[in-house]
Amino acid sequence: MDFAEVARRLELEDLYTAYAACLDSDALERWPEFFTEDCRYRITSAENYEAGMPLGLIYATSKNMLHDRVSALRDANIYEPQRYRHIVSGLRIVGEGDGALDTEASFVVVRTMQDGEMILFAAGRYIDRVVRGESGWRFVRKDVVLDSRQIDTLLAIPL
Amino acid sequence: MDFAEVARRLELEDLYTAYAACLDSDALERWPEFFTEDCRYRITSAENYEAGMPLGLIYATSKNMLHDRVSALRDANIYEPQRYRHIVSGLRIVGEGDGALDTEASFVVVRTMQDGEMILFAAGRYIDRVVRGESGWRFVRKDVVLDSRQIDTLLAIPL
Amino acid sequence: MDFAEVARRLELEDLYTAYAACLDSDALERWPEFFTEDCRYRITSAENYEAGMPLGLIYATSKNMLHDRVSALRDANIYEPQRYRHIVSGLRIVGEGDGALDTEASFVVVRTMQDGEMILFAAGRYIDRVVRGESGWRFVRKDVVLDSRQIDTLLAIPL
Repeated sequence: MDFAEVARRLELEDLYTAYAACLDSDALERWPEFFTEDCRYRITSAENYEAGMPLGLIYATSKNMLHDRVSALRDANIYEPQRYRHIVSGLRIVGEGDGALDTEASFVVVRTMQDGEMILFAAGRYIDRVVRGESGWRFVRKDVVLDSRQIDTLLAIPL
Repeated sequence: MDFAEVARRLELEDLYTAYAACLDSDALERWPEFFTEDCRYRITSAENYEAGMPLGLIYATSKNMLHDRVSALRDANIYEPQRYRHIVSGLRIVGEGDGALDTEASFVVVRTMQDGEMILFAAGRYIDRVVRGESGWRFVRKDVVLDSRQIDTLLAIPL
Repeated sequence: MDFAEVARRLELEDLYTAYAACLDSDALERWPEFFTEDCRYRITSAENYEAGMPLGLIYATSKNMLHDRVSALRDANIYEPQRYRHIVSGLRIVGEGDGALDTEASFVVVRTMQDGEMILFAAGRYIDRVVRGESGWRFVRKDVVLDSRQIDTLLAIPL
């Protein structure tokens, strides 16, 4: 391991940390900025992922679609006064090529309701591809692969 | 990112790791040593934090008050044979100045009762200020901001 | 902290990340490869660990015994269509000597059943000894110390 590798690893950890902090602070309008223009974003189950099934609970093929998604969520205006807390662990680089890196990480999301009730909301893996542009690392592709087949929510939110 | 930044990041991770290990091993008498003499320590809810409300579930304005807190907990001698496990994730430096760093991290605490029952005890953010003294990094200020408004405990313990 | 220490830390994080990913992907046949030939592996409770009691829920004193364990699990063929997700946090080096390092980390394991039900399956500490061989870091000794006295499972699985 040389210094460039060490620095890259910490930069990637910063990317995942900033991503989680953005979602947990409900700053959804900034969420698309973690992606490239022609990104692909998907939330799917491990079962469907392993079966090679496309689509998913959320499926977007551009940053614009992510912006639309956020607008739809804001317009739906479902008042669920909950808070989410992402815990991300086990980030690793599993491949490299064409100027991009394939990265994976595990996550658990805890949801806290206003009355204090906490539940395990989601657990799974991020299976991602990232590139480094002028403004830092961005997701070209992000597959949010849930350990469960469904999640307990009225409207699918970004994970 | 240069080597000094990399080393600093790992030192800060060591600080948070040692802090969590201290609490999880119930070594509360050592807990105040993670703070400066004139520290401020607070446990509060996200709701109160965002509303700018002072005070909290625990509020201390010096290391001595932290020692007093531990003595009170030991004297209360409430025998709750539980164990706590802190999972800390997403440490980041969000500001710098006056020889101090502003840092944040996410945490989830799992409580295990003697009969094996496990619950999500707390989730939230650390919003901290740290300085580096002769004996390493210490907290000048630590705001433990809970995602929930209350926690399930007879007596507030350090988090 | 010099560069060799930084690189070592990241290598150790890679070890724990690869270990967790192996278990979470149910690649149990590869699990013994994280250990040396004459390793000791044990799952025990914090209560028994602190009392200095040997043995445990799983106790193995060689890599071959770990292979046997995996074979037994596969033969038992209990179809529990669950998924496990390890979240590891707070890795630290607590000792060094004889060419080995003593390391510790906290973990929480979330289990997701096929119907989507998620539970906190286990929480605790890894109390390990690692050495660096030709093919990288390996566990010489791994004590999985559970915060609870029991875990909810038909057959003890590796953690």
